[in-house]
Amino acid sequence: MDFYRFLASRTDRMKASEVRELVKYSRRKDIISFGGGLPDPASLPSKEEIVSAIEFISSLGDRAFQYSPTSGVPELKTELAKFCRDKLDIKASEDEIIVVTGSQQALDISSRILINQRDYIITELPTYIAAVQAFNLMRPNYLGVPMDQDGMKLECLERSLRMLRENGLKPKFLYTIPTCQNPAGISMSMDRRKHLLELASKYDFIILEDDPYSQIIFKQFYFKRLKSIDSEGRVIYMSTFSKIYAPGVRIGWVVADKSIINFYELAKQFIDLCSSSINQYIILHALQSNLIEKRIPLIVQRYKKKCELMYGLLKEMMPEDSVWTNPVGGMFIFGWLNEKINTKKLLIDVIEKYGVAYVPGASFFVDGTGWNTMRLNFSFPDEEQIKVGIERLSKAVKEEAKKV
Amino acid sequence: MDFYRFLASRTDRMKASEVRELVKYSRRKDIISFGGGLPDPASLPSKEEIVSAIEFISSLGDRAFQYSPTSGVPELKTELAKFCRDKLDIKASEDEIIVVTGSQQALDISSRILINQRDYIITELPTYIAAVQAFNLMRPNYLGVPMDQDGMKLECLERSLRMLRENGLKPKFLYTIPTCQNPAGISMSMDRRKHLLELASKYDFIILEDDPYSQIIFKQFYFKRLKSIDSEGRVIYMSTFSKIYAPGVRIGWVVADKSIINFYELAKQFIDLCSSSINQYIILHALQSNLIEKRIPLIVQRYKKKCELMYGLLKEMMPEDSVWTNPVGGMFIFGWLNEKINTKKLLIDVIEKYGVAYVPGASFFVDGTGWNTMRLNFSFPDEEQIKVGIERLSKAVKEEAKKV
Repeated sequence: MDFYRFLASRTDRMKASEVRELVKYSRRKDIISFGGGLPDPASLPSKEEIVSAIEFISSLGDRAFQYSPTSGVPELKTELAKFCRDKLDIKASEDEIIVVTGSQQALDISSRILINQRDYIITELPTYIAAVQAFNLMRPNYLGVPMDQDGMKLECLERSLRMLRENGLKPKFLYTIPTCQNPAGISMSMDRRKHLLELASKYDFIILEDDPYSQIIFKQFYFKRLKSIDSEGRVIYMSTFSKIYAPGVRIGWVVADKSIINFYELAKQFIDLCSSSINQYIILHALQSNLIEKRIPLIVQRYKKKCELMYGLLKEMMPEDSVWTNPVGGMFIFGWLNEKINTKKLLIDVIEKYGVAYVPGASFFVDGTGWNTMRLNFSFPDEEQIKVGIERLSKAVKEEAKKV
Repeated sequence: MDFYRFLASRTDRMKASEVRELVKYSRRKDIISFGGGLPDPASLPSKEEIVSAIEFISSLGDRAFQYSPTSGVPELKTELAKFCRDKLDIKASEDEIIVVTGSQQALDISSRILINQRDYIITELPTYIAAVQAFNLMRPNYLGVPMDQDGMKLECLERSLRMLRENGLKPKFLYTIPTCQNPAGISMSMDRRKHLLELASKYDFIILEDDPYSQIIFKQFYFKRLKSIDSEGRVIYMSTFSKIYAPGVRIGWVVADKSIINFYELAKQFIDLCSSSINQYIILHALQSNLIEKRIPLIVQRYKKKCELMYGLLKEMMPEDSVWTNPVGGMFIFGWLNEKINTKKLLIDVIEKYGVAYVPGASFFVDGTGWNTMRLNFSFPDEEQIKVGIERLSKAVKEEAKKV
């Protein structure tokens, strides 16, 4: 049977994410991969922690094994409200919070409940590819805003906003990862955060604040989350336990006004009914016993060391015309090579001949640029792999630079 | 801020599922609820089983806590292929299988990759409401086919198919729960199954076979799954561990031709990246240690007793003009009351005055009929609750019958 003629027309936009495809290489022993986005294995829950979580779950009777309310296990929402208040400086009541199946689901639901075909959406340049792919389901138009070391260039943003307004248009929302951005490793300055909210008010749009990394800050950096300085209820805040507990648990959450959360809940009913009750209780236990609070400083310490090592090696070994971001936290360093180098074309060669992998940056740019960029992950590889891997990668890049 | 003007236009079709809303009542002590769809608490994993699963997970290093491949943990897919072959008589290789976050996700992905706006979709009358709501995202048209005790009336189906053909149209797919249907508790006869596949071939459409209950058969009933007699690759088969292990684990799977599975995988990348690795390993362990195989006879035994009890009481106590299905398995009995009774209007009264809940059937009918029907769940309540609850419900229905 020829299945393809049964496909919906929108599937013509579907293609595999290069980042997800690279997961294949992340466990091949002979290849050092900077391509993934996995946490440091040493930062994941210990056996003792899991046993203690199971003791907790066993004490609950059948609750952890049944379906749970679509918006999340009530005790977890209470604990999340505390966590938001104490750790993130975000005030939210239980009905302003919904538990989701990883923050990818928050992006997917945002796409469904907010986007009409041909709506304008604003993203950073570069931006998180899986967010764009979630939004693509609803076929929006994109406007990309370039960044410098302080985040989105707001004069460029305002130019786009004015242009839209002159054409009688408004953006539906602006999607940003303001802190330790993936892929760029850039964090938005406090001044710009305030200014961004002013623009949102002036030009009347919603902000999706995607915030998976802001607990992993290893340099002096003053900031507030956009949600915590949002006086108009314009910010939809999303975060996850993937980076501070474990990705395999697939638990994230969204904070927004109650009227917005209601629509997330309605949509989630038909997407997966509820997030895994077992995993919600695992996270509840981790929060109640301060396991997450205790783990964060350890993650910060390890990532700081790895990041500094990688950045130092890049500055030392890479060609002088390449530029690398120097992140205050998170998991990624981003680089711009000589404009003649196409990192996508280069990749297979680098994997096969040099045994090292990265993510070509082009797919992170919604405007079709970025062909000479790459994203490097420093959280997963160990220090020895970072040393050997960056050495190999530098050799490959220098070889290529000679050719072009 | 007035959020509503930012909503996508499709959200006007979103409303809370009455079934999910009824979950609220399922834990109120004073109300006996036949409204949910929860497994018997006594059928859920024991503490020993969970401890043993955790021992297994601990032995894997960090694998259970990291992201896993989008299509599923490879060892689980191997085990699922065996399970399909040995328990379901379905032949499938690993690349014809994808692990999903509960079978609700399978429905959601099917909706995204198959449906274009205004496509025709065929369902049973009544049908599983959360499937319809997943399909609604893409705004299809529905054709409902009535059932008798042997399942879909195929002469009605063929009439609809001919009507479509005469108008130059084809259905995109037919959605069916052929075995122990939710909500109707009806199972399709073997003859009809064969005939349905012939019609699918003749009129060229896909069949989505949703199969959560077919392992829970407690009467003599000969059947084969549609997928196991599908010679043309027209059947997309979906099932779940919610009813034979635990809903809280949110693990299901889809079996289809490789070209179809590839599209499920592509879509899933942007929906939740991957299903929970922890939960996939819990299921892997349960399959490898035959925990699920051993549990099924116990579930069957308990549900048989409860179902017979409930059906007997309904026949004894309900008005003579009411009709109740007598299921061969599954979790639900469905009833048609006197046509003058509107079960939706009746519900709140019955909850408040009689302390018993059910699901009004109307929302299960895509053609707007079924106002006098109700779905009763017999798996979750205990035997005493079934006795007291059906007595209360019968009183309420008889009272109402006097009024109308």
